[in-house]
Amino acid sequence: PDFKAVVDNAWAVDQIASAARVRRVVVKLLIEIDVLTGRSGVVDSTAALALADLIRATDGVELVGLHGYAGHAQVQPEAVRRERNDPAMALLADVVETLREHGHEIPVLTGGGTGTASMDAQRGLLTELQAGSFLLMDVAYRNAGAPFENALFCRSTIISRPTPERAVCDAGQKTLTADSGPAEVIGRPGVRYLRGSDEHGSLVVEPVALEDDLAVGDVIQLIPSHVCTTINLHDVLVGVRDGRVEVVWPVATRGHVW
Amino acid sequence: PDFKAVVDNAWAVDQIASAARVRRVVVKLLIEIDVLTGRSGVVDSTAALALADLIRATDGVELVGLHGYAGHAQVQPEAVRRERNDPAMALLADVVETLREHGHEIPVLTGGGTGTASMDAQRGLLTELQAGSFLLMDVAYRNAGAPFENALFCRSTIISRPTPERAVCDAGQKTLTADSGPAEVIGRPGVRYLRGSDEHGSLVVEPVALEDDLAVGDVIQLIPSHVCTTINLHDVLVGVRDGRVEVVWPVATRGHVW
Repeated sequence: PDFKAVVDNAWAVDQIASAARVRRVVVKLLIEIDVLTGRSGVVDSTAALALADLIRATDGVELVGLHGYAGHAQVQPEAVRRERNDPAMALLADVVETLREHGHEIPVLTGGGTGTASMDAQRGLLTELQAGSFLLMDVAYRNAGAPFENALFCRSTIISRPTPERAVCDAGQKTLTADSGPAEVIGRPGVRYLRGSDEHGSLVVEPVALEDDLAVGDVIQLIPSHVCTTINLHDVLVGVRDGRVEVVWPVATRGHVW
Repeated sequence: PDFKAVVDNAWAVDQIASAARVRRVVVKLLIEIDVLTGRSGVVDSTAALALADLIRATDGVELVGLHGYAGHAQVQPEAVRRERNDPAMALLADVVETLREHGHEIPVLTGGGTGTASMDAQRGLLTELQAGSFLLMDVAYRNAGAPFENALFCRSTIISRPTPERAVCDAGQKTLTADSGPAEVIGRPGVRYLRGSDEHGSLVVEPVALEDDLAVGDVIQLIPSHVCTTINLHDVLVGVRDGRVEVVWPVATRGHVW
């Protein structure tokens, strides 16, 4: 299987190589470069080269490429995406040049995301694009102008209608995450998701919505604000086409955080 | 079994009563009063009385009490808790008086939480306290001065150490929620949880921590900022006493958001 692991330090190389030697396999490695995101990844060519040389000198592992994910350039307006992605990819290009000058082949250059996918494709530096959110999208990426359609929706029931201006649905923070802002109610003009409590979603109902009133028991649809953390809350995804349920997919990787 | 359902509208009463009559049971109901929290619940005595009268006139349901949870008074400094809880409980007392004047017995008055538990006990109005977070606690309740010990911790491994001032652990927003601020690293002076990405936790390492260095592979312990939403991310809780694992509990209700 084409399994690759990402490393940015000698300890990880040693741990993976030790395990690989016991099992008599060779694990393909990518070195993570911090492309100005400020999270994980080696921060310059010198550190990258030292790690590449270590991998070359270590049995059980093989260097196949670099991983440079510009996370800070993804969920942003287009001008900001370009402004942040250009220096990020320039840095990645510098590092790969240094490594190739020192005899490392580096066939794989992986990075990019839903926000920068089209500019990364134009640039032609990366050999693999890591865009994932594009498939289902969310409010944050849509507001940032990513050119893909929303395909992930949450259905929620109105459970309380205490005043004309106020409604409560049963989708709170255990159903819709708020790390990227509130979810968005669709198809109900004047109804806005204000905030989630643990179990409740508080909705504001503007006067314009009163003609087509929102009643307890009504089911509304919302677009989650952040696809990644929201799907992580759910055990299944329900696939619908033309109003019919076609498939129920388990969310196989949620809960695997040990 | 002593099952009780909370209602704040006629539609819910009708739905529950219809189902109860089919099964030839009587469901005990609590009317939710909005005790100035601004979420669900009937907003005044008039609405509460109308709903109580409806329940009395409906077969299959029985009114046993009122539910008035002052959520806005819980995770707050003590002065704010009192300032918000006093009018909330005064309102609840008013409503119950009105209902009793009209012949409704109202044996159960349920409300309160970890923040207001001691002042609610002193007041003596409630017959049931809904405190739950007190059992495991979190950063938010501890910072608000709730008089209980933290008993919920998250273990996470340092996976990257790109610069002296920066470390990354494997507990991001899929492991620790950030709706109530960042988690808190314990036992590592100078190491601070800055923010969670989907899968990464970004840590700031202050110079003071450098003497006892933080290395890749080290396991740190953190206190979650919000117990409710964090436990909802996990499939199991691991019970530890004196450094030994004694029990593994499944989180039975997570994922039940349909």
